[in-house]
Amino acid sequence: VLFAACELGVFDLLARAPEPLCAAAVAAALGTSCHGTELLLDVCVTLRLLAVDTRVGQAVYTNTALSRAYLVRASPCSQLDMLQYLSGTTYLCWAHLAEAVRQGRNQYGKAFGVPSGDLFTAVYRSQGERLRFMRGLQDVWRVHGRRLMATFDLSAFPVICDLGGCSGALGRECRSLYPACQVIVFDLPEVVLAAETHFSAPEGGRISFVAGHPLARVPLTGAATCLTGDFFKDPLPEADLYILARVLHDWTDAACSQLLARVHQACRPGGAVLVVESLLDADGRGPLRTQLYSLNMLVQTEGRERSPAQYHALLAAAGFRDVRDGGVRGTYDAILARK
Amino acid sequence: VLFAACELGVFDLLARAPEPLCAAAVAAALGTSCHGTELLLDVCVTLRLLAVDTRVGQAVYTNTALSRAYLVRASPCSQLDMLQYLSGTTYLCWAHLAEAVRQGRNQYGKAFGVPSGDLFTAVYRSQGERLRFMRGLQDVWRVHGRRLMATFDLSAFPVICDLGGCSGALGRECRSLYPACQVIVFDLPEVVLAAETHFSAPEGGRISFVAGHPLARVPLTGAATCLTGDFFKDPLPEADLYILARVLHDWTDAACSQLLARVHQACRPGGAVLVVESLLDADGRGPLRTQLYSLNMLVQTEGRERSPAQYHALLAAAGFRDVRDGGVRGTYDAILARK
Repeated sequence: VLFAACELGVFDLLARAPEPLCAAAVAAALGTSCHGTELLLDVCVTLRLLAVDTRVGQAVYTNTALSRAYLVRASPCSQLDMLQYLSGTTYLCWAHLAEAVRQGRNQYGKAFGVPSGDLFTAVYRSQGERLRFMRGLQDVWRVHGRRLMATFDLSAFPVICDLGGCSGALGRECRSLYPACQVIVFDLPEVVLAAETHFSAPEGGRISFVAGHPLARVPLTGAATCLTGDFFKDPLPEADLYILARVLHDWTDAACSQLLARVHQACRPGGAVLVVESLLDADGRGPLRTQLYSLNMLVQTEGRERSPAQYHALLAAAGFRDVRDGGVRGTYDAILARK
Repeated sequence: VLFAACELGVFDLLARAPEPLCAAAVAAALGTSCHGTELLLDVCVTLRLLAVDTRVGQAVYTNTALSRAYLVRASPCSQLDMLQYLSGTTYLCWAHLAEAVRQGRNQYGKAFGVPSGDLFTAVYRSQGERLRFMRGLQDVWRVHGRRLMATFDLSAFPVICDLGGCSGALGRECRSLYPACQVIVFDLPEVVLAAETHFSAPEGGRISFVAGHPLARVPLTGAATCLTGDFFKDPLPEADLYILARVLHDWTDAACSQLLARVHQACRPGGAVLVVESLLDADGRGPLRTQLYSLNMLVQTEGRERSPAQYHALLAAAGFRDVRDGGVRGTYDAILARK
């Protein structure tokens, strides 16, 4: 219901309308059937995504605070791109959950007919799909990024590198919170190119993207630097702090260990790594949201969600010490560990 | 999660096991991956579909009362066939909910590539699909049938005809509750043939199915009689009570009116019709379950769920009077109306 209402533009229409609209007016504006529209609107009311009032004997609909904040394109917290990604990609992978449990692996083959030997070749299987994924991630950090980057005071790290930093959403939060730090966003060349071409950022928090060969570093005045490469293969830039946000959950323990060892090696003395993930309870049986994310990792990646203790073990094995939990339980939490 | 756990046979395995099983034992028995299985089991625990205990430091799983009652094949209330139908058919139609709202019509074309000009040609598009649908319906009536057939005392109706009676599940409840009544099950020839071939019933409540041309009535000792035909076109058998259970919700108001007029005409003097449906609140904005069923009708049929007042209006327009509500709000309710 949420996916369909977003896709049809229900919340954007009601946000633009100067007054509450009846179902027939919504149907006329969206070019949808009257009966289907009325049903959808009334289910949205029950789900608290819309409010209904009666004017001159007619039911008229408006957005709720919830939909105004998260389901309207113009809202700074809009989640429309993430919902589009979940609807068009994730929902279809979940149709093969039983097979994923059987095989213990993701279902890009069954869902989309693409091989997934190289995970991000499957995830980024077309330019459109890459953009949807990147925009979805940006929605996530738009809501959670600032709090996560403020969980620990990062101002003592002169150079901060966001590995797999995608469109630079977390990098921008770092630039804004810690203006004295240099921020480097590191991601695959095609991601950096797509970010440069399709993503614009508000003034002041701008990040300039430059596609090039690995380590083609281009510092830009007042902006973050962007480097391109594969963090499993190419040299990592030197930095004092590495951010791995929603990265480790994509990968097996073995791949995480390999990546963390590379990060440890590149890290300057006195440096650290900041891991941002959704955290499972110690026994793996909660919270439900993170358990479902972990099933999502099963159907869409090579990884899983983990408990704090599991991340601590991975970090310690790679040589990191003084592991500290952010302690802010929520959709995402941060873990800081020193070299 | 529920669909996948049922499809993989998690609940049946745990029901058969002489003692609680660990995740590795479940994975070994089902031929599934260890990691995926553990994840799935732990989410089932959070959803109260499984219980977990610790034995010798190891997590072991058992069914809960809920899963024992509804998710085990051998349970008299098993819903496994309905869940299989919802997973394999309904889930896939819901992927096209936005398009269904746009067009105001079902999505067999997009979901399965079949035309839906004739609704039940699409619903019964293969022998396997017909059986899954019929078995799912049988699951529903196994749980709700007896209470629904006992909502009103039907013993005063000498001949009861269940229109679209499918595998005869409600017919059997009538035979059992009202042994002096003659029970006729009326459905399409291919449905009757499938029921005869694939459905067995417990001793005593047996219904014999006989496929044949319309009105090839074959009364059988101690069993219900079965007639074949299309209730929109073929002559309806004479009866004192007609049951329309989960039938009207498949059809437009116009088709319902046509069907009810035919029923009224065939009905003996003093007779009645019993409508069994999930009922919407008067304003259409609850309960959520019925609203979702109504969206389900949008993506899978030509109909909708309706409020009591809407059924009353359809019944009155067809000439029925003395409309009485069962008043037992729940997943389904019964409405009785006199000729």
